[in-house]
Amino acid sequence: MKPARIITLLSLIFVLPLGAAQIKVEQWGVFEVALSGPTNGNPFLDVNFSARFTQGDSVIEANGFYDGNGIYRVRFMPPIQGEWHYITKSSCAELVGKSGEFTATKPAPENHGPVRVANTYHFAYADGSPYEELGTTCYVWHLQAEALQEQTLRTLPSAPFNKLRFCVFPKRYTWNTNEPILYPFVGDPSTTNWDFTHFNPKYFQHLEQRVADLQKLGIEADIILFHPYDEGHWGFDRMPATADDRYLRYVVARLSAYRNVWWSLANEWDFMKEKKESDFVHFGEIVSTNDPYHHLLSIHNGQKIFNNTLPWITHASIQNGSAVEDTGRAEEYRDVYRKPVVFDEVKYEGNIENRWGQLSAEELVFRFWNATVAGTYCGHGETIKSDDQILWWSKGGVLKGESPARLAFLKKVLATAPAEGIEPIDKWQDCPIGGQPGKYYLVYFGKETPSNWVFEIPKPPLGKLQSADGLKFTVEILDTWNMTVTPVSGIFTLQKKDGYAYVDKDGRSIALPGKPYLAIRIQRVEN
Amino acid sequence: MKPARIITLLSLIFVLPLGAAQIKVEQWGVFEVALSGPTNGNPFLDVNFSARFTQGDSVIEANGFYDGNGIYRVRFMPPIQGEWHYITKSSCAELVGKSGEFTATKPAPENHGPVRVANTYHFAYADGSPYEELGTTCYVWHLQAEALQEQTLRTLPSAPFNKLRFCVFPKRYTWNTNEPILYPFVGDPSTTNWDFTHFNPKYFQHLEQRVADLQKLGIEADIILFHPYDEGHWGFDRMPATADDRYLRYVVARLSAYRNVWWSLANEWDFMKEKKESDFVHFGEIVSTNDPYHHLLSIHNGQKIFNNTLPWITHASIQNGSAVEDTGRAEEYRDVYRKPVVFDEVKYEGNIENRWGQLSAEELVFRFWNATVAGTYCGHGETIKSDDQILWWSKGGVLKGESPARLAFLKKVLATAPAEGIEPIDKWQDCPIGGQPGKYYLVYFGKETPSNWVFEIPKPPLGKLQSADGLKFTVEILDTWNMTVTPVSGIFTLQKKDGYAYVDKDGRSIALPGKPYLAIRIQRVEN
Repeated sequence: MKPARIITLLSLIFVLPLGAAQIKVEQWGVFEVALSGPTNGNPFLDVNFSARFTQGDSVIEANGFYDGNGIYRVRFMPPIQGEWHYITKSSCAELVGKSGEFTATKPAPENHGPVRVANTYHFAYADGSPYEELGTTCYVWHLQAEALQEQTLRTLPSAPFNKLRFCVFPKRYTWNTNEPILYPFVGDPSTTNWDFTHFNPKYFQHLEQRVADLQKLGIEADIILFHPYDEGHWGFDRMPATADDRYLRYVVARLSAYRNVWWSLANEWDFMKEKKESDFVHFGEIVSTNDPYHHLLSIHNGQKIFNNTLPWITHASIQNGSAVEDTGRAEEYRDVYRKPVVFDEVKYEGNIENRWGQLSAEELVFRFWNATVAGTYCGHGETIKSDDQILWWSKGGVLKGESPARLAFLKKVLATAPAEGIEPIDKWQDCPIGGQPGKYYLVYFGKETPSNWVFEIPKPPLGKLQSADGLKFTVEILDTWNMTVTPVSGIFTLQKKDGYAYVDKDGRSIALPGKPYLAIRIQRVEN
Repeated sequence: MKPARIITLLSLIFVLPLGAAQIKVEQWGVFEVALSGPTNGNPFLDVNFSARFTQGDSVIEANGFYDGNGIYRVRFMPPIQGEWHYITKSSCAELVGKSGEFTATKPAPENHGPVRVANTYHFAYADGSPYEELGTTCYVWHLQAEALQEQTLRTLPSAPFNKLRFCVFPKRYTWNTNEPILYPFVGDPSTTNWDFTHFNPKYFQHLEQRVADLQKLGIEADIILFHPYDEGHWGFDRMPATADDRYLRYVVARLSAYRNVWWSLANEWDFMKEKKESDFVHFGEIVSTNDPYHHLLSIHNGQKIFNNTLPWITHASIQNGSAVEDTGRAEEYRDVYRKPVVFDEVKYEGNIENRWGQLSAEELVFRFWNATVAGTYCGHGETIKSDDQILWWSKGGVLKGESPARLAFLKKVLATAPAEGIEPIDKWQDCPIGGQPGKYYLVYFGKETPSNWVFEIPKPPLGKLQSADGLKFTVEILDTWNMTVTPVSGIFTLQKKDGYAYVDKDGRSIALPGKPYLAIRIQRVEN
């Protein structure tokens, strides 16, 4: 008997006769082949299922997965437009050699493809659109009661964040001791006696739905594959090695066709007492080799920073709040990794007892600005306790802090900054100036309260010019806390000061309001 | 005809008949076998010569080298005491199978063996004696006129430095445009037409003599194998790849038996326009595999930091002056490399036009203290111009600055600090406190001018204790600039303040003189 053949496009399922007419899916969308197959034995262990997708010389092998109820799926994210052909492979005769065609069409305007590393230290969408990372963390928002999840999804559209970090596995930690709505494996939650050979498809279908929900909002899903906030309560932090590996392959097979996926191998990897550092190298290699699209892949540290020079790590995901108290500190990680640096944890805006959860909004925004002018990226988190006992950092819900509005202001500033990204202008000379030399500068004063700033910029690269004398710039004063932009009248014209710096030819200064958190934006005028 | 057989012990040469009586050399001293061999053809290219040294299961293969005038030498640094046997190997029949015995004896009191990495972030001599790195730089002191070299050697005994960085090759750069006293290859200096296949043995004999001179002074020789300050003037920065490799093997064969050798693969590697990054990986592998003793091996950066995670790199040799303006910056390199961090270049005490040569003595000493409390090491250099036009940083001579006396004070402080090394006490919390938790603390105030300090230390590790309450400490005030130590009367007894810190049970504060560059030394009293 021939198995029924089901093709899913995003959440729409088409049951098609063999030899169906052309199916269309947008570039970087999800194309899915779903087939009925065996239900005897343990399909999670017994059946290999994958497909080969081809267009001319482009060949992509994607692993499939068992989704329960006799359904086997394989998903594909077409990286280029045009006619694709596929053919399935399997250890099971029923699932072998099913083939078909479809067309990858022009993506919708809001679909820019997956985010990639660009210009060594920065990111961009696959279609070349700029992506200035501005993330937040809600570790297990998707495992809370349905109403709370929906509230989080209603909060996000008006927040400035374009990345959300969250865990696959449930979390048990201060401010989050409730049980999750679902469990990833078949078993008995009361005894935590899990069968690690049987995934719970509903758990992962729900996870996918949340990834798709975020995608609709234009938010990247920074999916944390392991974390220590279990400590044996459920035991997902100490599964047998075979279960770890199978779990990773399963998640990667299910999710890698979603363009907004980023892989975070672990949160605070070194706090996972039952794992060794070499385990994470092994995990990283599994994810990297099983993800045909090579989504961004990082690993977040506790006290011990992972070796982010390893080739499969696309960017450094750093926890170190003190590093973004100072541009010189933030910048150092760029030098050593020569990869984008994302400070995914810099402590949180909040008022809880733990010293990592007590930042003022001013301090968190200050850290974002330091990260920015240092040519790195920063992450938001909120641990504000209130009557609802719901902390955004763990559960999502609503944002209560004062930092998001200021981060939205920063986002607006970055939206008009050079697409190549902000670079430290004169690194190791301790100038808190970022930008693109000769074109664009952000001078950030942090906690200083200047009432005046003598216009002076480090010597720009001269290229074919003999001198930068005469180059013209506009200047604006940014109050990064009060979210104002005040243009300074007139044009500033460069004149060489010495071997290292240029000033304005008339020696102009800029009057400043003597408050903290000021910045100056300097932009080249074409002349 | 049998070749004459010559055995050299340090600079003493014994010409011995075959079957000589027992020769003695101290452990970590230099044992040398010198044999007469062929002079026809090009001995540098045509003759392989090495020896195998054995004591029980200990086997060390050391490469020999041609030293001109028909003499072939192979040197050996016995790593353990006792009876050693050797036998030579060669591509040349005359040099094959010469064997002998000698005894490695107890080392002299001042001989502690080579310096090794200890406690991950620190160093120690092979005999376990502590080694707190405190280096200086005189790039080409050994290539100046003889009288100036001798002056440098007379200056060093009263200076605090226990490491000297210098180059094998001559340097041509600002403040050093004179020709060297010798050249490393046979050729014509006026045309810089070198025969890279013929080393000049005199050049390397002289280099060895200077390494031995430093050894006598207890100073490690941080030998820079390549550098960019040639720019084609002599062309030693752009030799053919075969010449580079041969040169490295030659230097390593000649020098690795000297216990005070450290290898610095390059100075400002990324400023060498004719070399690629992969060349230096290749060079590092050559040095690492050819040095039987695995001396300390590092590579110093210009603007681009090398991948110091590579396994053959023993410690990070960093140029970044701004990193030691702040303990939090200095500490970061420890985290990413998990190796000792030596800031070999942090700008220099001086008064020249270049901004890297204008530090005040106060600023340089400040940088050393920041490095120290961050658990790292710092390097001295002096670019003070005076009538003699001789800058220590390049040529040696005499020290004119005010920092060396203060660095001697720092050295005295470190001499009584815990032998395990200074560790950051509460990293990423921005406390400029280094030490060994629960035992010893240095609180450094840098440019602050405090008149009072409330005694407070981060929670020490409790081990089996329920609490650190009751632990007793003495306190001293260090004026790191004026070089005074002022004990504070009485004992400070810990009492828990909160989850993160302890204070004195009587809430004691310490009155301070309101000056910059103060530190407090806190030491546990056994009770």
